[in-house]
Amino acid sequence: MPNISEIGRNMPASPIRKLVPYAEAALAKGTTVYHLNIGQPDIQTPEVVLEKMAHLNLKVIAYSHSAGFASYREGLAKYYAGFGISVTADDMMITTGGSEALLIGMNTCFNPGDEIIVPEPFYANYNGFATACGLKVVPVTARIDNGFALPPIEAFEKRITDRTRGILICNPGNPTGYLYSKAEMETLRDMVKANDLFLFADEVYREFCYDGATHHSAMLLKGIENHVVLVDSVSKRYSMCGARVGALISRNKAVMATALKFGQARLSPPTFGQIAGEAALATPDRYFTEVQAEYVKRRNILVEGLNRIEGVICPKPSGAFYAMAQLPVDSAEKFCQWLLESFSWENQTVMLAPAAGFYASQGPGNQQVRIAYVLHQDALKKAIRCLEEALKAYPGSLQANAVARARS
Amino acid sequence: MPNISEIGRNMPASPIRKLVPYAEAALAKGTTVYHLNIGQPDIQTPEVVLEKMAHLNLKVIAYSHSAGFASYREGLAKYYAGFGISVTADDMMITTGGSEALLIGMNTCFNPGDEIIVPEPFYANYNGFATACGLKVVPVTARIDNGFALPPIEAFEKRITDRTRGILICNPGNPTGYLYSKAEMETLRDMVKANDLFLFADEVYREFCYDGATHHSAMLLKGIENHVVLVDSVSKRYSMCGARVGALISRNKAVMATALKFGQARLSPPTFGQIAGEAALATPDRYFTEVQAEYVKRRNILVEGLNRIEGVICPKPSGAFYAMAQLPVDSAEKFCQWLLESFSWENQTVMLAPAAGFYASQGPGNQQVRIAYVLHQDALKKAIRCLEEALKAYPGSLQANAVARARS
Repeated sequence: MPNISEIGRNMPASPIRKLVPYAEAALAKGTTVYHLNIGQPDIQTPEVVLEKMAHLNLKVIAYSHSAGFASYREGLAKYYAGFGISVTADDMMITTGGSEALLIGMNTCFNPGDEIIVPEPFYANYNGFATACGLKVVPVTARIDNGFALPPIEAFEKRITDRTRGILICNPGNPTGYLYSKAEMETLRDMVKANDLFLFADEVYREFCYDGATHHSAMLLKGIENHVVLVDSVSKRYSMCGARVGALISRNKAVMATALKFGQARLSPPTFGQIAGEAALATPDRYFTEVQAEYVKRRNILVEGLNRIEGVICPKPSGAFYAMAQLPVDSAEKFCQWLLESFSWENQTVMLAPAAGFYASQGPGNQQVRIAYVLHQDALKKAIRCLEEALKAYPGSLQANAVARARS
Repeated sequence: MPNISEIGRNMPASPIRKLVPYAEAALAKGTTVYHLNIGQPDIQTPEVVLEKMAHLNLKVIAYSHSAGFASYREGLAKYYAGFGISVTADDMMITTGGSEALLIGMNTCFNPGDEIIVPEPFYANYNGFATACGLKVVPVTARIDNGFALPPIEAFEKRITDRTRGILICNPGNPTGYLYSKAEMETLRDMVKANDLFLFADEVYREFCYDGATHHSAMLLKGIENHVVLVDSVSKRYSMCGARVGALISRNKAVMATALKFGQARLSPPTFGQIAGEAALATPDRYFTEVQAEYVKRRNILVEGLNRIEGVICPKPSGAFYAMAQLPVDSAEKFCQWLLESFSWENQTVMLAPAAGFYASQGPGNQQVRIAYVLHQDALKKAIRCLEEALKAYPGSLQANAVARARS
């Protein structure tokens, strides 16, 4: 029997999906499980999209251009212009989700053995795409005590070697919810320019910026136009993760010409998803206003609720719909499994994502979890209450142990 | 400005799309261009699919399981059972077209530097996926004079080295239309077993077998259950190329577990496409009977028409909807460009795919073209007539030159 590949062996398993069998077992016992572990929003897809998809009149579901519908790319150019970003339809390739944009972008820009610097914690699947392309992810650790701000420039510079070819950021961040300031983006620009690196910017949460904060796109940075590769997606923006439609965008002509060769090999991005994506361009502004208002309420419930629990630290994110929390536990991995396997409070429990999978370094994420606030406000309140009780009951709780030790 | 990757530089450009600017120029001049160059069928998608898609009632277009809808995979297992192929839902991963099945399959089974043997001419994008995975495609040349039958076993054996890890076939073949016999499949089985290789079988044209011929799937071969990786797609079967839904199928548990890790990194296959694919499982048999009857008529018109032209050789294919033809020209590439750039007959011309892009070897494809018979019968007849006139007028026509020489 032939063996599988080395890359295949090295591919990381999804850090989130490992707990799924335990969640299934809890459900089978009749326990309500609050899913705070995944980024699948419960928000409705915009009406304009649902309407369009309910009235399709296709006779043949045909391939599109490998770069995607020209009309859709032109529509996207206008969408970006609304953010002050000047790009043309030729600077874009429609991809099968942000995932394919990352994979094709990495294959286009980096050689096996190259290194890319990524502030951690980062979106766990960056590891998967880097492994598939033979790249080495070099982490620079951001700290929970300053809300996961961009690590100081010296921390990046220490990690630049002769194999370093790029920096990859997610802004606003998954899993941190951190929104980079203009000054932080300019720090990145200077570093990218000085070291002739690619800057990959995953901006799929662009619309999710709160408290009046402004999003500073990497595409707005002057002087590194040929260095920036933008990864985008309709998944979160319009709550249509299943459409599998994203975009790879760069003003670097060689990057786009090369990416198109990868695009041609796989023929075209999904036709239905593109129709949905193009329809979504007409989403009224009030959709985002409403969605943002809802997420702000949820975020506030979550962050305030968590920080009220003794020993829990949860910085307030300015964007996306995730928060990272430090829990007073021996191991977040064990705690998350225990929540599903051995705990329930009023027949309810919580599913969280242990943060270790979002770090390349061993250690800093061991007591952290990522929480996606994708549940409605009441469910979120119950989930927090549940978590509070769990932290009291968990045998490996540092808080409970400390209290027990103080009492004994 | 940072450079693009080596793999990116090595990625082949689509051999078909190179001619697109010439076709656009011909259209701009008002010339009718018969597109015999692409595999986009004009056949209507089954009514059951169009009906389903016209009555969607989704509120949130959500991710699916990374391996695809369980219900769809169970439905597919029944579909395969109809061909005597026994597989379970766990032996399958739904992919974004056959393209992603190939890419993930190759990444799962092969290491960069590995060699895979592929009978040529082959589907040009195999080159693209192999390049993206760092694999070397080692061709074994099939011959037009026996209709592109499987080359003799000795031809394969001569090419097996210590880096050979697999054989990749397309059955029925794109671009040849050749359908492997049971004996040929057994030859492949023995070779695969003796050398402990993976056998990748691209069977996306399974439904397109003519004249009562039977399809012998690689999944039916005994004794190499852990070696076979099946690549499948709904694109051609149901004339829904744009759905971008395919499948990677293997009974090898390590292959499927590893493939799923690649699948998890990209989250899920397209949701709309899966809904369409699942609906398509209910396509009535008469759809295929009608489609096959139509393609047989087209094939006969094409093959008979071409073979009537002096100097043209076109074997009669038993499957798929392509034919390879040898033309009496100095260079098929030049001829195809000339057809679009400099020729028209009654204001019409023909777009063909030069076959060189379907060969890894230099030489054997230089006078060949691939013709997709995806036009209705009248258009096909006009296209053949056009081609006949073109071969008389083409300055590099060997036939015309021979006649001219004989006359002088």
